[in-house]
Amino acid sequence: MQPDLVGSEAFRTEALAFVDWLSRYLAQVEQYPVRAQVEPGAFRAQLPAVAPLQAESAEQIIADLDRLVVPALTHWQSPKFFGYFPANHSVPSIMAELVSATFGVQGMLWITSPACTELETHMLDWLVDLCQLPTSFKSTGSGGGVLQDSASSGLLCALLAARDRATNGSSNLTGCRGDLTVYGSTQTHSSLEKAVMVAGLGRAQLRKIPVDNNFAMDPTALARQIDLDRAAGFAPTFVCATVGTTSTMAFDPVPRIGQICRAENIWLHVDAALAGSAAVCPEYQGLLHGLEFADSYSFNPHKWLLTNFDCSCLYVSDREALISALSITPEYLRNTATEAGTVVDYRDWQIPLGRRFRALKLWFVIRRYGLVGLQAHIRGQIALTCEFADWVRADPRFEIMAPVALNLVCFRYRADNKFNQTLLETLNASGELFLSHTVLEGCYVLRMCVGQPRTEHRHIVQAWQAIVTLASKLAASGT
Amino acid sequence: MQPDLVGSEAFRTEALAFVDWLSRYLAQVEQYPVRAQVEPGAFRAQLPAVAPLQAESAEQIIADLDRLVVPALTHWQSPKFFGYFPANHSVPSIMAELVSATFGVQGMLWITSPACTELETHMLDWLVDLCQLPTSFKSTGSGGGVLQDSASSGLLCALLAARDRATNGSSNLTGCRGDLTVYGSTQTHSSLEKAVMVAGLGRAQLRKIPVDNNFAMDPTALARQIDLDRAAGFAPTFVCATVGTTSTMAFDPVPRIGQICRAENIWLHVDAALAGSAAVCPEYQGLLHGLEFADSYSFNPHKWLLTNFDCSCLYVSDREALISALSITPEYLRNTATEAGTVVDYRDWQIPLGRRFRALKLWFVIRRYGLVGLQAHIRGQIALTCEFADWVRADPRFEIMAPVALNLVCFRYRADNKFNQTLLETLNASGELFLSHTVLEGCYVLRMCVGQPRTEHRHIVQAWQAIVTLASKLAASGT
Repeated sequence: MQPDLVGSEAFRTEALAFVDWLSRYLAQVEQYPVRAQVEPGAFRAQLPAVAPLQAESAEQIIADLDRLVVPALTHWQSPKFFGYFPANHSVPSIMAELVSATFGVQGMLWITSPACTELETHMLDWLVDLCQLPTSFKSTGSGGGVLQDSASSGLLCALLAARDRATNGSSNLTGCRGDLTVYGSTQTHSSLEKAVMVAGLGRAQLRKIPVDNNFAMDPTALARQIDLDRAAGFAPTFVCATVGTTSTMAFDPVPRIGQICRAENIWLHVDAALAGSAAVCPEYQGLLHGLEFADSYSFNPHKWLLTNFDCSCLYVSDREALISALSITPEYLRNTATEAGTVVDYRDWQIPLGRRFRALKLWFVIRRYGLVGLQAHIRGQIALTCEFADWVRADPRFEIMAPVALNLVCFRYRADNKFNQTLLETLNASGELFLSHTVLEGCYVLRMCVGQPRTEHRHIVQAWQAIVTLASKLAASGT
Repeated sequence: MQPDLVGSEAFRTEALAFVDWLSRYLAQVEQYPVRAQVEPGAFRAQLPAVAPLQAESAEQIIADLDRLVVPALTHWQSPKFFGYFPANHSVPSIMAELVSATFGVQGMLWITSPACTELETHMLDWLVDLCQLPTSFKSTGSGGGVLQDSASSGLLCALLAARDRATNGSSNLTGCRGDLTVYGSTQTHSSLEKAVMVAGLGRAQLRKIPVDNNFAMDPTALARQIDLDRAAGFAPTFVCATVGTTSTMAFDPVPRIGQICRAENIWLHVDAALAGSAAVCPEYQGLLHGLEFADSYSFNPHKWLLTNFDCSCLYVSDREALISALSITPEYLRNTATEAGTVVDYRDWQIPLGRRFRALKLWFVIRRYGLVGLQAHIRGQIALTCEFADWVRADPRFEIMAPVALNLVCFRYRADNKFNQTLLETLNASGELFLSHTVLEGCYVLRMCVGQPRTEHRHIVQAWQAIVTLASKLAASGT
C-alpha cells in the first residue's frame, strides 16, 4: 500500500513540515555564505546513483535539504547578494506560486481555465496604469500584454512578429529577397543575438551599433547603419532599444530611436527587463519616454518587483501581429469560446502551448504591497545604492566606471584588471557578499546591484567595509 | 510603515493561512463543477479597474479566491477531469515548487547555483535508468537531458539543433541552398508546425505524412516523400515521430522511421509527451523500441508522472549539437567554472536565459513515491481505462474509434457528429465530469483520458453512468 500523496490531509501535514523548514531557511539566509562553497561535481557525488525503489519520507528529504542542498546553493535571496541582477521574491509571490501549483490548471486556452486568462489580462492592464505605459498596450486597445517566462522569450516572440510582418506572413526565410537585419547596441542583452539565431535570421544579420560615453546606443550611428544596409539590399526589420542595460544600466535614447524606426517602418522593441519596475514611481517614468514609438516592450517583475521567477511582462501595440506569427489551432483544441472570438487564448501569444497560472503572483504582490508599498520598495533600494555610490566616489582609491543609475554601481579599484578580478573573486569566495563583474572598454569592473528586499542599510555598510578592507590588504601585499 | 512581507515570521504566518485554504480546496475539489461555469469576461468584470494604492490583507485575497477564482477555474485536479491530457501534480511536487520559489535561485549557469544544475543532471540520468532509455541520453555519454517548460519548447530546441547541423552551423536560412524540409504525420502535435514557423523554415516545408488505420505514421509514405523532396532539391532535415499522439494515443513505428532517418542522415525527434511516463513500468518500455535511433526525445513528467507543470524532459544523444545551436556568452556571465569546461550551463540548452530550480520536483516525487509507487500510479490508471473501455465495447450503442492504449479511450455514440457534439457539450456544461474531443476521418469523437491521481473506480463508474444516461435521453428526445 502506497502512502497517500495527493489527499488534503497529506497536503496539510507535509506543507506544515516544509513551511517550518523554509521559515527557518529564510531566518538564516543571511548567515549562509552567499556563493555556493562547492567544487564542480561535489554535490552530485553525494547523491545515490540509482533512484529509490521504495518510497522515502519527507523527513529524509528535509534532512538532505540541510545537509546537501543548502551548501550547494548560491543564495539569491540573501540580503548580501549584489550580483548580476536581483531575482526578487516576497511572501505574497511565494504564496501565489503555492496556490498556482496546487490548482494545477492549464492556461493555454481561455476555456481551460477562464480565471487564469482573465486575471492575466487584468494584471497586465493594471501595470500599464501603474507604470504609466502607453495605453496602446492595454487590452482595451489594439495591443495587449502577456506573461512570458523571461524577457528572452518575450524578445523572441516580438522578433518573430516583426519577421513575419516583414515577410508578409511567410515564416519561410529561404525564399525572401534580401536578408532581414536586426539592430541592437554593443551593450544589448545577449538574448537579442540568441533570438536572431533562433528565428533563422543568422548571427551575421545582427548589427551591434556603437554606444556613447554613457554606454547608450548612438542613434546617429543607428540611422547610418540602416542607410548602409538598405543601400546594400538588406531589409532592416527590428531594433531592440534597452532601458537599463545589463552591464551598466545605460539608457538608450528611445525617443530618437523611435523616430528613426517610425520613419523607416522598423519594429521597435524596448527591453527594460530590470529598470522597468522602477516605473511604478512617477519620478522614474521619464526613463520610458518614447515608449509610444514601441511595437513591443518588456520588463520583468521577477527581477525587481518582488515577484519570484518566472514573471516577465511582454506588451505589444498590435496584438494581431503577434498572434498571426504564433497561432495554430488543431482540432483537439477547438472550442466554441475561441471560435466566437470573444476570448483571449494566450497559447497564441507565446512559444509553448502549456502555461501556469502566473498572474496570481502579480495579483497577490500588487494587492499585498499596494502601489505605495511597491514604490517604497523601489525608492528604498535606490537610496541604498546612492549612498553606496557616494562612498565609492568619496574614496580616491576607487573610481566609478559608468553613470550610476537606479540600483547599480559599476566601479573599480584604481589598479589593473588582475587586481580587480582578484578582488572580486576573493570577496565572492569569502561568502560574505556576492558581486559580479563586467568589462567596459577593456577594464574589468565590479558591479554592485542592490535589489534584494531583505537588504538593509547595515548590509551595504558591511559590503563596503569588506571591499575596502580586502582591497587595502591586496594593495599592501602588492597583488 | 509597510507590513513585513519578506521576513521568516511573515512567511510562516501567511503560509499557514494558505495551507489551510488549499487543504480545504483539495478536500472539496471533487464537489466543484469540473469546467468553469462562467461566461467570457464575467470574472474580469468583478475585479477593481485600478490597482490598490494601499496594501490589502491576505484574508482579503483568500476571500476572493473563494468568491471569484474558484468558480472561474476548470479544475484540472478534480478526479472527474478526463479532458485533453492529465496535468498531474502531487503533494511532493507542490512542496518542491514551494521550496523552489522560496530559494528563488537562478540556474542559468552552474555557478549561479550548483545544486540547481547538478540535481537536474542527476534526475535526468535517474530517469534514463527508470525508463530504460538509451544510455546515449545520459550525461556520462555523448548526450544528456535538460528540463524544459514544455515539449513544445523541447521540440523547438531539437529542431534548431537539426537546422544548424544541416546548415553547417549557420542560423541564417536566407542563404542556404534548398529549403529544409521537416516531417511529421497528420496526427503530430501542433507544436511541430509552430516550431517550424519559429525556426524560420516556413509552414510549407512541413510534410504531414499520412497515417495507417491506427493513426500511426506510414513509414513507406515517409520514405517516398523524402525521396520526392530530395529529387526536388529540398534538404530533408528533421522527422518528428510520436509515441502516443495527442488525438488518439497512436504509436508511430519508431524502429522503421529510425532506420529511414539513419540512412538519410535526418535528425529524428521522438515525442512521447504523455505516454513516456508509462515507461517507468517494464511492460510499457516496448513502446519506446527504436529510441536508440533518436537524436532527441522528450516526455513530460508534468503530464502523467505526478509532477506539476512545468517539467518536461528533453534528451539529446549529442549535446554538442544542441549547445552549438543555443550558446552565447556575454562578458557579464563569464566565470571560471564555465571556462574550465568542467560544468554544465543549462542556459545553453534552452531558449530563455533564466531558469527555476525545477529538478527539485523530480527529486521529491521520485523519492516520495519510489519506483514502486510510480509504477502503481501508472498501472492503476491504465486498469481504470481498460475497464472503462470494456464498458464502451459491451454497449452496442457506442463504438470505440481508435485502438485503446494506455490511459485514453476514443469513442462515440452511434449517431451523427451533431449528436456527439451535443453529448459532449451537455456533459461538460453539467460540471459532473469533463471530457474533450477530437475529429477522426470526419467523425466527431469523445476522448476519455484517465490520468488524475485522485480518480478512483467510483469516478469512472459515475462518468460512464452520466454518459449513458445523457446519451439515452438525447436519443429519446430525437436530438
